[in-house]
Order: sequence, then C-alpha cells, then structure tokens
Amino acid sequence: MKYHQQWQARAIRPEGASDWFAAEVPGNVQHDYGHMMGWGDINIAENVTKFRETEGYTWEYRALLDYHAAADQHAVLVFEGVDYRYDVLIDGETRLEYEGMFSRTEIPLDNNAGSELIVRIHPHPKRETAEFEDRQQADQCVKPPVCYEWDWHPRMLVSGIWQDAYVQTRTDGYIARCEPFYTLSDDFSRAEIRFEVDCAEPVEITLYDPDGQIVGTGSRHTLVNPRLWWCNGQGEPALYTYTASTETHQVSGQIGLRRVRLVMNDGAWAEPFAFPKGRSVAPIQLELNGRRVFAKGSNWVNPDIYNGRIDEARYEALITLARDANMNIFRCWGGSGVNKRAFYDLCDRLGIMVWVEFPLACNNYVGTPHYLRVLEQEATAILLALRSHPSVVMYCGGNELFNNWSLMTDQSLALRLLNKLCYDLDRDRPYIMTSPVFGMGHGGYTFYDPDAKKDVFQLFQGSSCTAYTEFGVPGTSDIEDLKASIPGDELFPIRNMGSWRLHHAFGAWGAERWLCMDVLNMYAQEPLDSLEKVVAQATWLQCEGYKAVFEEARRQAPYCSMAINWCYCEPWITAAGNSLITYPVKAKPAYYAVQTALRPVMASARIPRFDWRAGERFSAELWMLNDTHKAAQMTVRASIVLAGVEYPLLTWESGEACENRIGPTINWVLPDVDATEFTLRLQAGDATSEYRLCYRRSETYAVTRQMNV
Amino acid sequence: MKYHQQWQARAIRPEGASDWFAAEVPGNVQHDYGHMMGWGDINIAENVTKFRETEGYTWEYRALLDYHAAADQHAVLVFEGVDYRYDVLIDGETRLEYEGMFSRTEIPLDNNAGSELIVRIHPHPKRETAEFEDRQQADQCVKPPVCYEWDWHPRMLVSGIWQDAYVQTRTDGYIARCEPFYTLSDDFSRAEIRFEVDCAEPVEITLYDPDGQIVGTGSRHTLVNPRLWWCNGQGEPALYTYTASTETHQVSGQIGLRRVRLVMNDGAWAEPFAFPKGRSVAPIQLELNGRRVFAKGSNWVNPDIYNGRIDEARYEALITLARDANMNIFRCWGGSGVNKRAFYDLCDRLGIMVWVEFPLACNNYVGTPHYLRVLEQEATAILLALRSHPSVVMYCGGNELFNNWSLMTDQSLALRLLNKLCYDLDRDRPYIMTSPVFGMGHGGYTFYDPDAKKDVFQLFQGSSCTAYTEFGVPGTSDIEDLKASIPGDELFPIRNMGSWRLHHAFGAWGAERWLCMDVLNMYAQEPLDSLEKVVAQATWLQCEGYKAVFEEARRQAPYCSMAINWCYCEPWITAAGNSLITYPVKAKPAYYAVQTALRPVMASARIPRFDWRAGERFSAELWMLNDTHKAAQMTVRASIVLAGVEYPLLTWESGEACENRIGPTINWVLPDVDATEFTLRLQAGDATSEYRLCYRRSETYAVTRQMNV
Repeated sequence: MKYHQQWQARAIRPEGASDWFAAEVPGNVQHDYGHMMGWGDINIAENVTKFRETEGYTWEYRALLDYHAAADQHAVLVFEGVDYRYDVLIDGETRLEYEGMFSRTEIPLDNNAGSELIVRIHPHPKRETAEFEDRQQADQCVKPPVCYEWDWHPRMLVSGIWQDAYVQTRTDGYIARCEPFYTLSDDFSRAEIRFEVDCAEPVEITLYDPDGQIVGTGSRHTLVNPRLWWCNGQGEPALYTYTASTETHQVSGQIGLRRVRLVMNDGAWAEPFAFPKGRSVAPIQLELNGRRVFAKGSNWVNPDIYNGRIDEARYEALITLARDANMNIFRCWGGSGVNKRAFYDLCDRLGIMVWVEFPLACNNYVGTPHYLRVLEQEATAILLALRSHPSVVMYCGGNELFNNWSLMTDQSLALRLLNKLCYDLDRDRPYIMTSPVFGMGHGGYTFYDPDAKKDVFQLFQGSSCTAYTEFGVPGTSDIEDLKASIPGDELFPIRNMGSWRLHHAFGAWGAERWLCMDVLNMYAQEPLDSLEKVVAQATWLQCEGYKAVFEEARRQAPYCSMAINWCYCEPWITAAGNSLITYPVKAKPAYYAVQTALRPVMASARIPRFDWRAGERFSAELWMLNDTHKAAQMTVRASIVLAGVEYPLLTWESGEACENRIGPTINWVLPDVDATEFTLRLQAGDATSEYRLCYRRSETYAVTRQMNV
Repeated sequence: MKYHQQWQARAIRPEGASDWFAAEVPGNVQHDYGHMMGWGDINIAENVTKFRETEGYTWEYRALLDYHAAADQHAVLVFEGVDYRYDVLIDGETRLEYEGMFSRTEIPLDNNAGSELIVRIHPHPKRETAEFEDRQQADQCVKPPVCYEWDWHPRMLVSGIWQDAYVQTRTDGYIARCEPFYTLSDDFSRAEIRFEVDCAEPVEITLYDPDGQIVGTGSRHTLVNPRLWWCNGQGEPALYTYTASTETHQVSGQIGLRRVRLVMNDGAWAEPFAFPKGRSVAPIQLELNGRRVFAKGSNWVNPDIYNGRIDEARYEALITLARDANMNIFRCWGGSGVNKRAFYDLCDRLGIMVWVEFPLACNNYVGTPHYLRVLEQEATAILLALRSHPSVVMYCGGNELFNNWSLMTDQSLALRLLNKLCYDLDRDRPYIMTSPVFGMGHGGYTFYDPDAKKDVFQLFQGSSCTAYTEFGVPGTSDIEDLKASIPGDELFPIRNMGSWRLHHAFGAWGAERWLCMDVLNMYAQEPLDSLEKVVAQATWLQCEGYKAVFEEARRQAPYCSMAINWCYCEPWITAAGNSLITYPVKAKPAYYAVQTALRPVMASARIPRFDWRAGERFSAELWMLNDTHKAAQMTVRASIVLAGVEYPLLTWESGEACENRIGPTINWVLPDVDATEFTLRLQAGDATSEYRLCYRRSETYAVTRQMNV
C-alpha cells in the first residue's frame, strides 16, 4: 500500500526563510516558488531570469507523515528520485544525507504516523574553480548539466522531489525485485526466460504472451519460436508480460525478446588501406535480431525545463509523434540525463529504440574519488532500472566528450568506470564511451556552413560518416508562439536583444544562431520585412534542409547506419532552434518534412545544392530508398514545377529491390522565367516526394530588373 | 625453503609412450624431447619442421617429491607457470586441472616426501572450426598465438613447465604477499608509501633509498622530495628497495616512484575542424612525472622459440643493448605474451619503459563464457604480477585487433573485460584496447612500398600519425649465421624454397618478404651476384631506412609521440627480417644505425627520398633533434661526399632550444660523376650524422655507358 503525502515547501534565503507554499510532488520546487511569487510563466519574455536569484537557496519540503501500518506491516519512506543533494530529517533527526538524483532511496519508518518529515535540498553543485557560470560548474557532479545553460536552454537551475515519493507499508510478502532475464538461441527459435526475485515469501509468477494468453507459471520458461521485439518499421514490438504475486503484493512487467549488437558498418572493414595503417572505424551499425537496421530518429532532450513536472501523457504524445514520423530511435542526450520510467515503458510499447547516455556532456568530468563514487552509485541505479527494457539498445558515456570543448579521452576514469559497470551489470548491451566515436559525425547545425562555404545538400553529400547522430537545420517557432513569448513591443523589427536573444534567436551560438538572419537573407530575393516572411523563409530552409540530410544519410547506407537529427523537442518556447517539435507538443512543418523523408520505401532525389540559377543545368540522381529489408519496387515519374508549369522529365522503373537502389540522373536546363523557386516532384503511385528549391533569374536579367525597379 | 625437483618427461604418442627423458625445469618439453630424439638445433636448416608430429602429443613430467618439512612447517607445491593446459597428479590422484600459463598455482602437500608427482600437459588448444592451421587455432585460448606460426616465427608449438616449480616449506611466518602502493603529490614533492601484507605473523618492513640508506621501518612511509623513477635519457631510474621479514621468511622488492599518464598529443585537440565533426584522436603521448616523453624503442617479441629456456642473462644482454641504443621503451607485443619476472626487474633497473600487451594478437577472440573466464583469470594474474613495476607504463588489449585481419571492435567483450580488470586492479595505469588506436599507425614493413610507390623516406614524410608503433625495414642475417642455418647446397644462388623459405626470406608475407630481392634489385646498379653483395645491399637499405623513419618520427614531435620499430630481437635465426638483433643476441648493423638515430641531441636531415640522379637538385632540411627537455645548441657543418670528394655546403648555428629546431634547407645540384652512392654528412662537434644515399648517373650518360659496355 502506498501513501502519498501532502507537501509544502519553503526557500531558505539569505534574507530569511520564505513562507511555506504548496508543493507538487513529483515536481520542482522552483516552479512552486515562482508560482507563489507570481513570477509568471517562464516561457514568456524574460521571466525565467527571475530565478537566477534562487540559485543559492536551500529548499525544504515538509510533510506530516500520514499512513497506516498494520501489525504485520512495516512502513518505508520511498523516494524514487530527489534532485540533487539532499538530507531527510524525521522529527528533527537526520535520517539520510544523499547526493544523486537517479537513485531510489528508502528510509525505514517506525509505525507511528504523524511525524514531521523534512527533505532539505541543498543548493546546486557548482565547481568553485569553474571559469564561467555555465555547464562547467556541473563537471564534478552527476546532475545533468543542461540547466546550467545550453544554446537552446536558458540557465534555470531546477531541483526538488522530481520523482514519486511515498510511504509504503510492506509485509513479508513484499516483492522488492522481480527481474526477468533471458537468452535467445542464435537462430532466435528458442528463448529461455528466468526471473530473479527478492522476496521473503514464495512468489507466484505468471507469464503471458503478447496476446495476453498465459504461457505458463514459475520462475523459468522455455519458449519455442518466441515472438520477437522489433522496432518501428521492422515488425511488431512484441511484449510478453508477467505478473508476480504473493498474498499481499503484486508487481507486473514487460519482456521484449530481442538481441541487439553494434556490428561493423558495411564496407568499413575495407578501411584503412595504406601504410602507416590505423585502425578501422568503431562499429555503430545496430543489428536487431540479426538484421542490420538503419536507425532513423532524433535527439531526445528534456521536454520541459521542469523535469519533475513531466508526466506520462506528455511522453506519450511525444513518442507517438516519433513513431508516426517513421522514426525508430531516440538518442537520449546525456546533457539532460535519464528520463522517468514511463518513457522507457512507452518506447518498449511503441517500438522506439533508445540510446541511453549517462549524464555527462561537453565537460571534462575529472575522475576525482568523490565524483567517481557518486557516478558509480548513479550509473548503477540507472543500469538496474533500465536493463530490462527491450527498447534500450545501447549505452553511451556521454555527449561529445572526445572533442576540444570537453577534453576527455579514452583514458578518462569516468568513462572507464562506466564501461566496467555496463560490463558487470548488462554486458550484452553495447557501450560506447561517447558520441561521436571514430567514424561518426556531429553537425553541422545550420542550413549554410560559412566555413565550408556549403549548404547542407553539399556538406552531407561530401561527407562519409558511419552515422550522423547530430545534425540540425534551424527554424522558428510559429507566429502564435512567437507572439506569446516575445512582448509585442519587441516583436518586429527583430533585434538581437531582450526576449529574442533570451529565447535563442541570437547569440545562442555565435551572433546569428538560431534565427540565422544572414542565411535567411542569402536566399531571399525580396526583403524579409515582416515577421510572417521571416518565419516562412526559415521554415522553408528548415524543411528542405532536413529532408536533404535525412535522405542523403539514407542514401549513404549501408556504410552509413544512422540519421539522428538535433533535436526532437524543446523544453520551453524558443524563438528559433533546430527542433522538430516546439514546446510542449506542437509539430513544426519540419516535423512533417522529416516524416516524408523517413518513409520506409520512397522515391528520393540527390540534389547537388539548394540554390539554382536560370540557364544552369539542373541535375539530380533518382533513388528508391528502402530500409524495410523487404522487396519493393516503384514507377517514379519525375517532373519540375516552375512558375506554375509542370515539366515532365522522365519515368523510371526501379525494379525490385530489398534495399536502396540508384536510378538515373535527371539533367534539365533551367529556363529563364519569373520565379524565385521551383519544385522537383517525384510521383510514385499515390506517394509524392517534393523538393522546393531556390531559383534565381540569370545575372543579366536580374541586373536589368533591378535597374528597372 | 625451496626444494627444486629432479624432473623427467615423456611423450604420450599415438603409437605409445616414449621413454622417460631428462627434462629441464623451467624449460620446454619439446626441447628435451628433440634432444632425446637427436633432431638437432632447430635453428639449422629445416629441423624445426620435425616437431610438427608432436603437436597432438600429451606430455608428462615426473618427479619423486623430495623435500623436508619440519613439524612447524607445511609444504606447498608451487608452479610459477605451466604452459598451457595441465593436470597435476600426486600418487595417481588428480590434485589440479588447470588452463592458463600466466597464473601461479599452488597445491598443499602433506609432509611426506617421496610421492610421485605427475604434471600432465595436454595438447595445444586448437579451435576445431579454424579454417587454417595457423594463429586462428589459438583464438579461444589465452596462449600467445605466435608459436602457431607468424611471418617471422616458424610453426612450433611449445609447452611445458616454463617457469620455476618447486616445493616450498612454510611456517606461519611465510609472507604470501608484501605489495607496495604509493601516491605522489601533484608537484611530486611528497610520496606516501604503504605496504599491503598477507602474513599470519607480524612483518617487519624496512625501506631503503636508492643509495641503500635506510629511510625507515613500518608499513607506511612519507617521503619528502622523493627521488623519482625516470626512463633512460630523462633521468635516473631511481629505485627504492624494501625488505619484509618475519623470523622465518624474508622478501624484498623495488619501488620506483613515478606518475605516468597518456595525455593528448600536442596539437591533436585542434582536430577535427569541419562539420560533420568526428572525435579527436585517442591520446598516446606518454607523460612521465609531468614531462611529455618521446617514446623511442622497439617491439619486443619472445627472444627464443623455447620460451621456457629464456633466463635472466639473456634478458640482461638484450635490455642493456636497448639502453645503449638510446631506447626508452619496449612495446611487448601481445602475440608472444608476457615475460618472466626478471624482464620487468631489469627494465625497472635500466630505465626501459614497458608497454604490456595481453596475449591477444591478430585474431577475433570471441567472448564465449569459457574464453572470458580463462582470460579473466590470466589477466588478473598478469596485473597482480606487474602492477608494482615502475617500468610498466601502460596496458594494451592486444595487437592490431581493430583491423580486418582480426575483426574485433570496441564492443568485443574480451577487450571490455580487460578494461574493467585494469580499472579494478590498477586504474592509474593507462589502458588502450589495441594498437593502433585512432591516430596511430602500423607499418610499412619494407624499404619500398609498391602500393604507395614510395620509399620509406617518402612514406613517412607524407604521414602524420600520433605514434608509429610498428614499422620495419628488413635486412638479412650476417654471412656467418646464414651459413650456419642454410645448408651449403642451398646457399647460393638464393631460391624461394627449402631453408631460405622456412627462415622467412621468401613467402613469409607475400612472395618476396623478407629478403625483398625485388627491392634490393631496384637500387642495385650491378648484379647482386654473390651472397656478400645481397647481404651488403640489404644491410644498406635497412640501415638507411631505419634512420629515415626514426628521425622523421622524431621530427614530427610533439604531435608524434612514439617511434617503435618492428622488431627488436628474434626467437631464432632468420634469413631475413626486420629485427635489429639476431638470435640469440647479435646486433645487426641496423642496430647501430638506430643507435645513432636515437641520440638524445643530434643533427638530422629530412631527405625527401633515397634515390637520386645526377643533374637533379638535392634538397634536405636540417634539424636539431632534442628530446631531453634540456637546452642544447649546435654548430652543424653540412657536406656531401660524392666519388671521394667532400663538398662543403653550409654551416648552421642552431641556437639554444629545449626541443627540436628546424634549420635551413640545403639545395645542391648533383654533378654527373662516376658513382653509385653519395653521403650527406652533418658534423656537429665530434658527432656525425651520415646518410648514405643512392646515386645514379644521368639518363643520357647511363644509356651511353650501357651501350659501351
């Protein structure tokens, strides 16, 4: 029996304690404090900056313990997760001092309700010697660094009882653990399932097949021709279920039977060739149940600044959208840590593979004894919580740790420790130390790369990575959200200041990101003299840019094995950014563009660049993309629509293929007509692939026209 | 008290057991059997092939246990190492069944001497499904694969009691372990030493400084301004010593105080630059006591086919030569496993850093439960035996495992297990999964690379690796050894057959290696029509080739941090090969060439290629190489010696520098004279650097001359 408590909280401030205020559990104490202070929605204008003054506060939660334990029961106070360093006091006595938000902690209670419970949350850890007030401050703790500020996340140090907390009354029949393990035969024809149980009394376990039929009872089961768990697009995410019960207690869970490996990318063993010879790249090809699966998806970040306020409904809405966009993977970026359990349950059910990163990102987490101790405790908790989820396909030490903005290496003790823990606790799941490892690529993050002097079409066609696990093309939020979050007097003309800047339109990364007015103007043939025009231009580039990269990555299969954009959703309303979905759950047009680019079988065009001029020869390779591993074929009719006229170019019969197939190259000289864009259209049955490209009149004509204006 | 036994051995053959024959312990039973059979020296002709028939034999060692245990003593039978799978029987009772040659095993005895001891050695492990009769057969065992045949090692499966074995009588005062640990303060001004001791009685420990003066007694010591252990060329390899005693037992040992790390190579954090951005290379710069040390040395392989017969004197002769050649590191190649303890003691004393590889090489060691179990046992034994040696600066999972001839990856469980064990048992020593890791290079192995169409001068000047940890230039053995090992009737003309082939002149790797007659002829202007001419030509190329690579690698510092050639010594008499020292301990001319190329401070020339023609402009950059970290300067007088005439070219004052310094480039048009070689000579005080290069007359002249012949 679980007893949830009535919680209040207060801030211990330099000027004295605040009044007690009602507190949500799970939740974030800053949210509740802001509510009491009347600071308004943090998504609006510069409200979030008001919270800077709270950074040094200590917080206290209070509850009068309310539960009933019978004579044969003992009561336990359970915290599923408290963010980040905290003490627990009961009637003034310190019962626990703890550091770490991903571990569950328990405190045995005597059987007297009515005691005063205090949970004291210490100020956020900040390395004193940090040079800047940013993520560096978090490089000696296991709190995800994102809230210390990122280029798409305002600085907003949240904490609190972010996961469920309750008093549980238990008898000897309490089942502390019922964990399934299984082995699959090499040919997948046989599964041996066994349960490990921690309980003082005998436990009755019943196993059900994915249709809900009883398979059998007991702690060991042998299944012949079991139904395997597959990711979205490759098959059914079949889940067996089980219940485990004693007279007084019952738990249940899911089992997805599958084998996952990271194997060498197709073609990568042929490299390198010449002397002096280095190593071959690191494998990053996911193999699911013996099948090499192209991983299509997005980087998952915390979908709310208030990590404690995220609930199952929000997860479900977001993950369902991913499934509907033909995605099969989330890379859960380490900078924002590990999610609540419902996230993984939903990914299990919806067939979304999960790449789990430990909470390290873009810092040098030096392996001091204190840091290693907390990391070991937290990583152990994470591994024990996640290892039974079929959706979890791999672990990763953290984000971009082997680059010069982080300065960690293969020798870093933290990453060697994580390898050890993964090996000890879950050795059959792949582990990589960071992303990118050798062969993979992160970036770029804009439609046009000023260093390379290339647009995203050119940049990615000139690259050859085993996996693209971060890449982004920015767009804006929609007009409605911009009007909601930017005060009316700042809204237009757009300037690099105030709310536009705070909401990441400027200065997030370099001066121009993420609105990138310089790039928007590059392709604008009329002044972008209204908010609507700016939004339309940014949306155009984001949609076409994302299609270009996702489809190019798919064309580079099988050497390339992953296309995972930065990023999926956002934790607050940004003015501009790389996400596909704005806060809290609103699909951008780019979401729908990506949805088309990830169709399992589709016609695709390899277009050398975005920007074309009348008189030039337009070329594009035609492809059939097919990542289903099943035979497909199509008749593709290619045409160009320019200034309202559709010019048919060719019809290509792909023939049957179980994988990608390259077709002919279109060649067509662009006529000089009055237009600023044209569309390449590929029609295959009812399905259409369209690419809306930039068009400019010839130089001579343009100059003439300009003079006539 | 140790009692060594009198040993006999016999072969259990298909046709029946052999007679008992005298057996050396430590030793190899094949050696003793061959001796009994009169099969002759395995270095001569094709004698070694006679041993092929012994591969399937089971061997038995026998001794009548001879020792005396007093009433307060108990007797223990100790095996320091038995190669590879064995049973121990005492009076017919099986007391031990074991797999693994690097673990020490002990069997308690009752106190009655006179029992019959049998050590039964099983046939060599061979994976039954292996495609070829080669190293593949060894990919599910922890026996080093080299004896299954390598391109410089004949197939010769040895086994036996390869390390010491004895009966030890012990009292309660027996010291099972006395292991020192220490921490050094960040500024090296303070060392805290502590001893961990396993003994039933109190142990008295005395610590002595490197001069033999008593520092103190007890299990904890604090040293202020301790003398640090440095590698050869960087300082004194200072060793503290200790004794630990009880009334009945004493042990002693050495402690070298130093901190070693693998840090990022200088300049490597600047890479990569462009999007999509991969990771930076893996660090391979050794930092010793805070100083980045350029690692100069050689790959150490088993110096005898009979691994059991190697003794301290052999180690000492070989390691002393390395020190005298200005080397500071051995990479102990995994293919031939781990050495006896004396090797590491000597390296401690002589200041030679040791890169330890676990016994994996060029195979896919699939992580089956059996393999992982034996690997864990053996790697644990290796780590516990080596971790107190200051000379051991790093661990490596094995040789070339991440290339297509091995097919292991970062995901291979064996390498993740080794990382875990190193972390658990010796976390402050660096661990790399294999060599090469990202950024490093192995090869080439010939003077001229036919794929790249480049000689070694060109190949390495066109490369940019963080470390060159294998590269080789072949030469022949000397005339004396060739005559000793190749039968007179095969000796000349040299043909690809018989003893020449068995001793690796042909067919070792491709048809031409290692004699490389094709390459020798490329640079020969007269027919190589005698054994003496062939040897002279090969020696010339080997000497100049090795100087070219070693000096180029040093010029590429600090980005490049290691130059370690393949290989140092050889386990038998080869006809041709890349070693610097022939069997058993004979320095080749190439040894002396390398000795000059590794002088701490020296004048060096970056010569674009080996082969020059009259009328061409000869160019060479001058350098002062200095890896001492101390200020040096020199006056370099450069001249060319051609057809007996010395042409002075320039004098360069280097100025003072603590590291390498580049000087001017020599430019000089080669006159057309009657010669086939010329020498670039750099004179710096008494020291000379000379480069003997190939010279050809101009085309016109050569053609004319040819017609006149």
